[in-house]
Amino acid sequence: MTVASSPLAFRQLVRAGRFTAQTAGQCPGYTQGNLAIMPGEYADEFLRFARLNPKSCPVIGITKVGDPAVPELGEDIDLRIDVPGYCLFRDGEKVAEVPHLRELWRDDLVGFVIGCSLSFEEALLEGGVPVRHIEQNTTVPMYDTNRPNGTAGRFGGMGVVSMRPMTAAQAIRAVQITSRFPSTHGAPVHLGDPAEIGIADIDAPDYGEAAEIRPGEIPVFWACGVTPQQAIRSARLPFAITHKPGHMLVTDVRNSHLAVF
Amino acid sequence: MTVASSPLAFRQLVRAGRFTAQTAGQCPGYTQGNLAIMPGEYADEFLRFARLNPKSCPVIGITKVGDPAVPELGEDIDLRIDVPGYCLFRDGEKVAEVPHLRELWRDDLVGFVIGCSLSFEEALLEGGVPVRHIEQNTTVPMYDTNRPNGTAGRFGGMGVVSMRPMTAAQAIRAVQITSRFPSTHGAPVHLGDPAEIGIADIDAPDYGEAAEIRPGEIPVFWACGVTPQQAIRSARLPFAITHKPGHMLVTDVRNSHLAVF
Repeated sequence: MTVASSPLAFRQLVRAGRFTAQTAGQCPGYTQGNLAIMPGEYADEFLRFARLNPKSCPVIGITKVGDPAVPELGEDIDLRIDVPGYCLFRDGEKVAEVPHLRELWRDDLVGFVIGCSLSFEEALLEGGVPVRHIEQNTTVPMYDTNRPNGTAGRFGGMGVVSMRPMTAAQAIRAVQITSRFPSTHGAPVHLGDPAEIGIADIDAPDYGEAAEIRPGEIPVFWACGVTPQQAIRSARLPFAITHKPGHMLVTDVRNSHLAVF
Repeated sequence: MTVASSPLAFRQLVRAGRFTAQTAGQCPGYTQGNLAIMPGEYADEFLRFARLNPKSCPVIGITKVGDPAVPELGEDIDLRIDVPGYCLFRDGEKVAEVPHLRELWRDDLVGFVIGCSLSFEEALLEGGVPVRHIEQNTTVPMYDTNRPNGTAGRFGGMGVVSMRPMTAAQAIRAVQITSRFPSTHGAPVHLGDPAEIGIADIDAPDYGEAAEIRPGEIPVFWACGVTPQQAIRSARLPFAITHKPGHMLVTDVRNSHLAVF
């Protein structure tokens, strides 16, 4: 399953066009990041949005204007070619999926790398908390909520959450584990009754696939990286790029190094 | 409300017989402890019971045999006279409440001081989590559960929990806050459905008073210091002494010094 011996070796496969699949399970122990690229004129506003919504939008890397490097996440990283799939948006509409950005990159673009739940799921498993959608090899269920994001200019909208079912004792343990990782969404934002955060039907996620909630289990909800993606779409930027869902940037940063205590 | 300027000054009032009430609210910021005194022949077994059940029975001080001092909790502490009320048990039955142990103390006795929830409730309030039974000036509701304690010789029985109602977001925050205080019961042991831990009627606590659970709130359950008291009673020791409920030992240890991170 693992195709490379290191994040660098993995990125070299991606650059060569020899890895184009989802990145879950690749380079275990290393942080993977969501990607958001936009013209520099919107970048300061987006950074303020991220600052206002740190649980859903934890920025772990930012490029300089026009420079696709993110040296804090890996000396060689080039956001134009290091992600195995990209989505191109114009005026808030997805217009294409592309394998690289060699032709699309522009000297006014700024790239944001945002922490993702793969990191804390690894910590949950190591901490003895099973993760249903990993066990069942499905996509985590995600839901629109009735909780408004902090708004910065054109970036706003409502929060999106991911859900993992578990027992109450596991939920308590999961709070402890994920609290250590504020840069990958941190502690849950809700647990128990889905209606409290505006979710009408837990079996009908807005994104991803439904996850079975067994007797004695409760749903536990985390802030989700789809939140900034939705904010970017609803801001209707004339030009924006994200990673293709599930196709992340694999960085040189160890998940364990993101732990705050 | 506060009657003394320091734990030492407070203990001097207790020794003089001038303070005989419950200790909640006295010497804010300082750790209060539950008390269990028994003949030394049972002490090693009780310590093993405590070790097996650290969340309900977090030992923060132990005396030498026959010596009522606990210098790690306060240089001057004398367990015979520093607690504002004691219960005397013979063969597991409560036979008297006494104001001091001057006549009852024996040279074979060992005293245990056990961390209590007053410490973490102070941390909850400081952390922005309201505590219903403090707001309403009632006794925290406590319940027998269907969760067996770890057993050491004659000490066993079922776990007892205390309950505080709060919103899910407050419960997540409460897990973070109380996880820092393993020596005062630590993180919750359960949240949500009371039936999962054998509680049939949340409005009918086995000890203390019922607490209102408002719409949007869930019950959150912590291991409780009544657990070791019940274990001592059910072990039917020929002779044992505990503090009178609510009448704790006030120590020189700051609550904040008990935090593990």
